[in-house]
Amino acid sequence: MGRTIRVTVWNENRHEQTNETVQTIYPEGIHGAIANHLKKEGLEVTTATLDEPEHGLTDEVLNHTDVLIWWGHIAHDEVKDEIVEKVQQRVLEGMGLMVLHSGHFSKIFRKLMGTTCNLKWREAEENERLWVVQPSHPITDGVGESIDIEKEEMYGEFFDIPQPDELIFVSWFKGGEVFRSGCTYRRGCGKMFYFRPGHETYPTYHHPQVLKVIANAVRWLVPGEGPRPFFGNAKPLEEL
Amino acid sequence: MGRTIRVTVWNENRHEQTNETVQTIYPEGIHGAIANHLKKEGLEVTTATLDEPEHGLTDEVLNHTDVLIWWGHIAHDEVKDEIVEKVQQRVLEGMGLMVLHSGHFSKIFRKLMGTTCNLKWREAEENERLWVVQPSHPITDGVGESIDIEKEEMYGEFFDIPQPDELIFVSWFKGGEVFRSGCTYRRGCGKMFYFRPGHETYPTYHHPQVLKVIANAVRWLVPGEGPRPFFGNAKPLEEL
Amino acid sequence: MGRTIRVTVWNENRHEQTNETVQTIYPEGIHGAIANHLKKEGLEVTTATLDEPEHGLTDEVLNHTDVLIWWGHIAHDEVKDEIVEKVQQRVLEGMGLMVLHSGHFSKIFRKLMGTTCNLKWREAEENERLWVVQPSHPITDGVGESIDIEKEEMYGEFFDIPQPDELIFVSWFKGGEVFRSGCTYRRGCGKMFYFRPGHETYPTYHHPQVLKVIANAVRWLVPGEGPRPFFGNAKPLEEL
Amino acid sequence: MGRTIRVTVWNENRHEQTNETVQTIYPEGIHGAIANHLKKEGLEVTTATLDEPEHGLTDEVLNHTDVLIWWGHIAHDEVKDEIVEKVQQRVLEGMGLMVLHSGHFSKIFRKLMGTTCNLKWREAEENERLWVVQPSHPITDGVGESIDIEKEEMYGEFFDIPQPDELIFVSWFKGGEVFRSGCTYRRGCGKMFYFRPGHETYPTYHHPQVLKVIANAVRWLVPGEGPRPFFGNAKPLEEL
Repeated sequence: MGRTIRVTVWNENRHEQTNETVQTIYPEGIHGAIANHLKKEGLEVTTATLDEPEHGLTDEVLNHTDVLIWWGHIAHDEVKDEIVEKVQQRVLEGMGLMVLHSGHFSKIFRKLMGTTCNLKWREAEENERLWVVQPSHPITDGVGESIDIEKEEMYGEFFDIPQPDELIFVSWFKGGEVFRSGCTYRRGCGKMFYFRPGHETYPTYHHPQVLKVIANAVRWLVPGEGPRPFFGNAKPLEEL
Repeated sequence: MGRTIRVTVWNENRHEQTNETVQTIYPEGIHGAIANHLKKEGLEVTTATLDEPEHGLTDEVLNHTDVLIWWGHIAHDEVKDEIVEKVQQRVLEGMGLMVLHSGHFSKIFRKLMGTTCNLKWREAEENERLWVVQPSHPITDGVGESIDIEKEEMYGEFFDIPQPDELIFVSWFKGGEVFRSGCTYRRGCGKMFYFRPGHETYPTYHHPQVLKVIANAVRWLVPGEGPRPFFGNAKPLEEL
Repeated sequence: MGRTIRVTVWNENRHEQTNETVQTIYPEGIHGAIANHLKKEGLEVTTATLDEPEHGLTDEVLNHTDVLIWWGHIAHDEVKDEIVEKVQQRVLEGMGLMVLHSGHFSKIFRKLMGTTCNLKWREAEENERLWVVQPSHPITDGVGESIDIEKEEMYGEFFDIPQPDELIFVSWFKGGEVFRSGCTYRRGCGKMFYFRPGHETYPTYHHPQVLKVIANAVRWLVPGEGPRPFFGNAKPLEEL
Repeated sequence: MGRTIRVTVWNENRHEQTNETVQTIYPEGIHGAIANHLKKEGLEVTTATLDEPEHGLTDEVLNHTDVLIWWGHIAHDEVKDEIVEKVQQRVLEGMGLMVLHSGHFSKIFRKLMGTTCNLKWREAEENERLWVVQPSHPITDGVGESIDIEKEEMYGEFFDIPQPDELIFVSWFKGGEVFRSGCTYRRGCGKMFYFRPGHETYPTYHHPQVLKVIANAVRWLVPGEGPRPFFGNAKPLEEL
């Protein structure tokens, strides 16, 4: 394309303030780890966090973001409704949105899904294996047939989401559960991708295949040049 | 099945108070016309309207409704948020929801879709023809290949909804537009059906094929006996 | 509905001739076990097998079948192409088709899918757990959140099928794989359901939940009264 | 991406031999018109036609084709089955396939769909308007909300195809019909796009928006670097 892709990585950034394990794994925060990788991929990346004014998501930032990545967990309720509405509006206008892991319970994801987005979970250091079920999708480029993650939090079905437009990954967990781990949706003029892995106490965002998926997904999420629809009262195009 | 199907037909019921054309076409209101037909089909039907206490949608009513039908137009904003949330909750628990015509802009529909649900429109007494594009679906039973409606309001694409799980009808309008007119969605344990026709100043809800579709859809929307999922912390099912 | 549902259970019926384990588990054949259960459910059931004239699928039989169930494994190639074409034709006209387990490689399934329908497999007596991912679907009625099968053959992704219209079950296997185990498709005026479990040397078709799914699916697969489309040269419906 | 995209435009090329209207509109054939446009877009384009040895689709050609475009009408039956099977195999391996207009009845399209692909049709010089119903899809880039074609053959529903993975365009015809005109499918590791317009006696493949859609679709159809799945007997990945 040639065109620069502008990514904003948003992180709640709270575990990073209090949990030593998280600090050790992600010295620059989860947002920092993801941002650093995407910069190496040649993307234009900035970060934003909950405790910044307007959560770092000013109109200026949102209007210059092609793809927004969202990680949150313990402070979903602190995200202001007016910011959530602006993000939703931007997605419907075309901005790509990638929601990671515990972001399944974020206000913005639930608002765009219309469901509870609830699930089963367990923290037991168990291994996860994500299987590709849609090998023709660019999000799977260079990923191989499956991704093995040594230790992860378990998320299990039923995952209360609308049927995905495209189901890309399905996870296997040692404890006996499965999960729809990579799901795309289209909303308005925008595209969305939910990607499951990434519990804060494991080094998941240093895993090369996980990072590969995230970079692929950013490129897939970039807004296109499709029509910006006209809504409202419309004159007939043919004689009545 | 043998089991009685309990339907609640909800109507804003405002045009009926002020507009003589509407009063002439629907002397018992839009809700009355639909309810009368469904009763003839052997269903257990009640009605509820905006100006009743709690809009007629008390916990008692909602908890004993298998399928809720929704018609609204000029007073979407007067529907209380807490009632909308209860209806959403009931859909996610399994209650079927049919949204008719201008209900596309209702709070409940927008909340379950996650999009603006905006569209093009025109009131020009033009004819509409709905074509079946999914003939194996029970919603099309006995309907024939297409439904001709002599005079209707036009709704045109782009209709800002998520891609339907199943697209059943596509409308043709004389003025040059098309519209995805019959769309199913699954949300949580519940099913939804959006059906386009039904402008208040035309006798659309006396049209035999339109009534046939509504009755078919009620039967398809009835909650099943599928699992009521458990959410939250889950013990492993296999040894870790 | 009141209307009798006519089911034909088709089985290759070859393992039953030579394998003592299979004979012990299924003294009346796999077709017999499935048919006996469906009869108890009040359906009108007949069986047909490969070595009968026309494989037991005469025009008379096919024209009086609402739902055809298909089990085959080692003799897919012996099924005559003209019979396969008749079955395909009947599905497109509205007959329901349920393909079980190793039927994934049958001529009829591959013909209706357009893909290789290939997969990974392993016979290792390992346990399988099928998770419901679409709890609003009638195929899951009374099944509960998951089905545990103590010993089954493993089938693993990538399963080379078109993206299902509806994904109902996802399987977990102890050895580390997942599989899209319950998939619906619509083809022409007919409906299809692929259901994974059922290796011949395990008593899977005596498992109450597996039998429940099969009975539910039969009811879902029954042809409707939707339009039988007209094809070919068509006069304009509006003035040109 | 930087990588050269190799397109093969296949045309039956029979109307061009006998019909003066077609010769006047497409002096270099339908394949020539499409190929010339794609060359201007910077793609590496070759053409192939029915009457060449192996229909111009030798192993050498197919193995070096990223995206195959298919136009056929009166000679579908003359396409050899072994060539059709090779094309299907290549699609399942990843090659993109775009089927145009009357190609709906080609052997390769019917084989990959599993249905009759039948429809209603009429040649009456009537106008067609294609509406975008998925504005976030790259196939709609730069196309605008609708495409007006002054004179086209009518194709009407029911179009006997599987429900598309993504429905991009819906057509309106003056005579009263609608049609699902732009449909994507995934088969194996390959992607497919069916695009309706293009009757041989009208200058449709000189229409700038139609050519824009075709060029967009070529880019979307390019094979990715997703996994090439392993099939067959698989060792367990976990201890049994």
